[in-house]
Amino acid sequence: MASVRVGLAQLNLRLGDLGGNAEMIMAAYDEAVAGGAQVVVFSELTVTGYPPEDLLLKPAFVYSAALALERIARHTGDVTAVVGVPEDTGQTGPVRLWNSAALCWNGKVRGVFRKHLLPNYAVFDEQRYFVPGTDAGPLLHIGNVRAGVSVCEDLWGPPRTADAAADDGGLPSVIGGEADTSPALAQVAMGARLLVNLNGSPYRRGKQADREAVARTRAAALGVPVVYVNQVGGQDELVFDGSSFVTDAGGNVVCRLPAFCEQVAVCDVAVPAGEHAAQARSDGSTRVGPEGNGTAPGVLAPMLDPLEEIWQALVAATRDYVHKNGFTDVAVGLSGGIDSSAVAAIAADALGPTHVHGVSMPSRYSSEGSRTDAAQLAANLGIDFRTVPIEPAHAALAGMLDTPDASTDPPADAADISAADLTDQNLQSRIRGVMLMALSNRYGWLVLTTGNKTETSVGYSTLYGDTAGAYAVIRDVPKLGVYELCEWRNRQGDGERIPRACLDKPPSAELRPDQRDDQSLPPYELLDPLVEAYVEGDLSAAEVVEAARRHGADADLVRRVTRLVDIAEYKRRQSPPGPRISAKSFGKDRRMPITNFFR
Amino acid sequence: MASVRVGLAQLNLRLGDLGGNAEMIMAAYDEAVAGGAQVVVFSELTVTGYPPEDLLLKPAFVYSAALALERIARHTGDVTAVVGVPEDTGQTGPVRLWNSAALCWNGKVRGVFRKHLLPNYAVFDEQRYFVPGTDAGPLLHIGNVRAGVSVCEDLWGPPRTADAAADDGGLPSVIGGEADTSPALAQVAMGARLLVNLNGSPYRRGKQADREAVARTRAAALGVPVVYVNQVGGQDELVFDGSSFVTDAGGNVVCRLPAFCEQVAVCDVAVPAGEHAAQARSDGSTRVGPEGNGTAPGVLAPMLDPLEEIWQALVAATRDYVHKNGFTDVAVGLSGGIDSSAVAAIAADALGPTHVHGVSMPSRYSSEGSRTDAAQLAANLGIDFRTVPIEPAHAALAGMLDTPDASTDPPADAADISAADLTDQNLQSRIRGVMLMALSNRYGWLVLTTGNKTETSVGYSTLYGDTAGAYAVIRDVPKLGVYELCEWRNRQGDGERIPRACLDKPPSAELRPDQRDDQSLPPYELLDPLVEAYVEGDLSAAEVVEAARRHGADADLVRRVTRLVDIAEYKRRQSPPGPRISAKSFGKDRRMPITNFFR
Repeated sequence: MASVRVGLAQLNLRLGDLGGNAEMIMAAYDEAVAGGAQVVVFSELTVTGYPPEDLLLKPAFVYSAALALERIARHTGDVTAVVGVPEDTGQTGPVRLWNSAALCWNGKVRGVFRKHLLPNYAVFDEQRYFVPGTDAGPLLHIGNVRAGVSVCEDLWGPPRTADAAADDGGLPSVIGGEADTSPALAQVAMGARLLVNLNGSPYRRGKQADREAVARTRAAALGVPVVYVNQVGGQDELVFDGSSFVTDAGGNVVCRLPAFCEQVAVCDVAVPAGEHAAQARSDGSTRVGPEGNGTAPGVLAPMLDPLEEIWQALVAATRDYVHKNGFTDVAVGLSGGIDSSAVAAIAADALGPTHVHGVSMPSRYSSEGSRTDAAQLAANLGIDFRTVPIEPAHAALAGMLDTPDASTDPPADAADISAADLTDQNLQSRIRGVMLMALSNRYGWLVLTTGNKTETSVGYSTLYGDTAGAYAVIRDVPKLGVYELCEWRNRQGDGERIPRACLDKPPSAELRPDQRDDQSLPPYELLDPLVEAYVEGDLSAAEVVEAARRHGADADLVRRVTRLVDIAEYKRRQSPPGPRISAKSFGKDRRMPITNFFR
Repeated sequence: MASVRVGLAQLNLRLGDLGGNAEMIMAAYDEAVAGGAQVVVFSELTVTGYPPEDLLLKPAFVYSAALALERIARHTGDVTAVVGVPEDTGQTGPVRLWNSAALCWNGKVRGVFRKHLLPNYAVFDEQRYFVPGTDAGPLLHIGNVRAGVSVCEDLWGPPRTADAAADDGGLPSVIGGEADTSPALAQVAMGARLLVNLNGSPYRRGKQADREAVARTRAAALGVPVVYVNQVGGQDELVFDGSSFVTDAGGNVVCRLPAFCEQVAVCDVAVPAGEHAAQARSDGSTRVGPEGNGTAPGVLAPMLDPLEEIWQALVAATRDYVHKNGFTDVAVGLSGGIDSSAVAAIAADALGPTHVHGVSMPSRYSSEGSRTDAAQLAANLGIDFRTVPIEPAHAALAGMLDTPDASTDPPADAADISAADLTDQNLQSRIRGVMLMALSNRYGWLVLTTGNKTETSVGYSTLYGDTAGAYAVIRDVPKLGVYELCEWRNRQGDGERIPRACLDKPPSAELRPDQRDDQSLPPYELLDPLVEAYVEGDLSAAEVVEAARRHGADADLVRRVTRLVDIAEYKRRQSPPGPRISAKSFGKDRRMPITNFFR
């Protein structure tokens, strides 16, 4: 068997920073080459970062990316860099780009592979920008070894089943079957003895196991190693885990870069002898083999524990959202409850405790426990902490609302006190939102919101109140998942982070005397699975009723919950983005109409 | 020439209301049949309403739509109904539907045409849900006349030029050319002597002229009449104008239904003799010809004046957003300025003045003129009016912010008073937002926001302040366009609606003493074209510099403005939806990353 030393560049790119990304790419190239790499593989759309969204509709953006690629190519020597870039087809029409992988060496772009399979589901909109490539080539020449180049979905080879797609992942059942449209098949037939795959693959729970299953199946079926490179870091509602890896020709994972870390690594990959092995590359350039450079077996970072994986995803997403948008510090409203405690703890891990400002804003209904629990959390985390009671504003606004001119009309439903009660509860929440935003304006802190996925689903929140802020850190984590994450974090050996009292007390919004969540909502043990079935599973209310019987939920309860999810769409539409960790998050992943009569 | 009486059903469908839409469809069918129609043509995805977005990913939704279609089919007699419906392909994969037009008569679905050309640009995401059809048939049989059926984009026949696509429309240059992929060509070759086209075509300025140009070109090139049916009414950020029409075989528009009105109409269409004219339909059913039913030359509603068209679009969108979401009344914060005056006037036209509640919320900085102008506007419109001064809350919150605990740290930039000034300005705006939302909670009023497209572009707004509300009525109207619309409305013969003073005074946010917009922003005569070039034209900052020289803008100004547009993305992401009237609105039409380093 021959051996090829592959460089994997797992970079935290800055979206749209074409010049900065080019610098990063050239530095990674140099580092990998210094480590003896014979080829350096980057992630999908490296030059722009992924996903560039509608920046791709700006001709100047695409042109500037092409210039940046030329600059990168001029930097290359004998070792090929495989760099992702949008490429103008020169065609007219609204969709006029290729999603390409450029093969650059000795100062020039020498060849381009164009992505065949363009995902247009879940968070992906690639058919809005790209037309499919149709060529399986050009192959990459690494000494005497030829390699097939492909981009992301190309390795999977749809069509996937509807279930797998709904799950944004899962193992396609078609690998090697008749419906397998992966260009990898043609590449191996053309003599490729290695596959390199450039990815912009966002994180969700358990995604890495699915990726590796696909690559291992591919590798074993075709008898060739697979090199899989992914970007790392947060980009709005997506977070990329990297987790770049290499399988051998038998489908064993022989190298895995750590998740959520930037890393440039080299790895020797054993390549099976093939019929084309004796053919020299036609371009006449030379390659230095790994001989004389020692061996590079490649790192094999362990897979993360499922809870650690989620925690790290939230930490990475928060850090990048804050820093990439030019902020250093954040403010978090601390209620003493589990959600705001979790967000503060994540922020402290992401930014360092001195950059996190906890604000307790007690009202006339806040319990003493809430105040002390919030203070204890801040002490545990070592973050800044301040208390601003909201009573003066609460009294002033309630008074303004009771002036004759404001209260001319009877409430919408005069027989029901709920309108007045709702008004007063929302008022408190909105005063807190106003205060946090005022602190944000004054001190330049970015505000993090604290709503979990369960609340976000059923709309148990106040628009412009607790939803006010720039980044919704746990928007995709259901309530019970928040508890699990906090318990996990407390076990990490650096002492109690989230106070026991926050974990043990019954959840409450504390917007009226003795309020508890379970007065308005079913218990979370019941609610979380209902919400998951309806939101992530795309079941109908009737189907959820069927599924919920097992959990002891009755039909009326299910219909009430699914209705709450439907009518909360207007709140979600005005809520800040937050990192996706599930198979279906809110945002680009779930595009529901607000005006919607379907029940 | 033979003549065919065609029924056009221009309906205001309720998205997702499968049962209600079925009722509406059957009633329209009956009405058209009573008028002698030999075929009744509906709009695209009639059963569900357009666009159903991710409801299409719920299998139960698609299945329920199929059941609703069966019910409609059972209702049909000898006259064919052509009804739009999503259809399950039975394929696996994330994208597994057809966008179909079902031909129903005598109780059953007798044939299905499947849309070929699936727009996936601008506000359209059809490739997220649908796979393309490939058959040009089946043809529709109307007595001895055969007709081709197609859906929306099928009539246009892409590829369009990039410019036309950026403009969401424009006349494709390929009609009849080599690149023309419209199924209409094959249909005429198969013997069709009439084309019917089902549309879900959202309004934008001047769209109807483009539609008619396409249909006229098609008709004249193929020598067959075209029947174009579109839905009407508002759906979140889209508004559909209807404007269904018929051309004769020479490409003359012979029938046009009024824009923004529900209407069922019949129209006799002269059909040219064709070689298949003598062939009877094979299914053996019969059709009543127009003979004995008199003549139905069809209405020919005039095209609207450009300003009236926009006003009606905003009125229709607002009415439907409010009513379809279960509200009757709205609240509008009235500043005495032009934007809030325009929104109140639109709301009064949409909902009736008694359903509009104007709220003046003067601060310590509000001029006397603002209060009296707002009161005058309310009197002119005949709407409810109340005044709630914000001073108590302003004083309370400013005091809270100055407590030692809240103000521990120096401002972000202590050398600059702008942080404190900005904080205080935003505070006032957010107090108004809180007050409007409190009135909304108490009285069940939906809050309309008043930001125009210019402000929305450059972020001249306070998040959770003046952006707080459910619907942003003039979000897609630039500042100068708001003036034009108000002047137009004042000329409509029912007296002064918007007081002269609102139109004449210099724009001001009145958040500090003697503030005027032009202290923070360039004059709107300069700003509006810059914003249009950058946002709607997708030019780069450098290209806008070039274009702006003509307007007297210098490079620094352009870069400042384009930078403002870029960094305001986070505000737009949390702002309410509003009706699209331009070739590129904010929302689904422009999907920009928040974290974005491209300059």
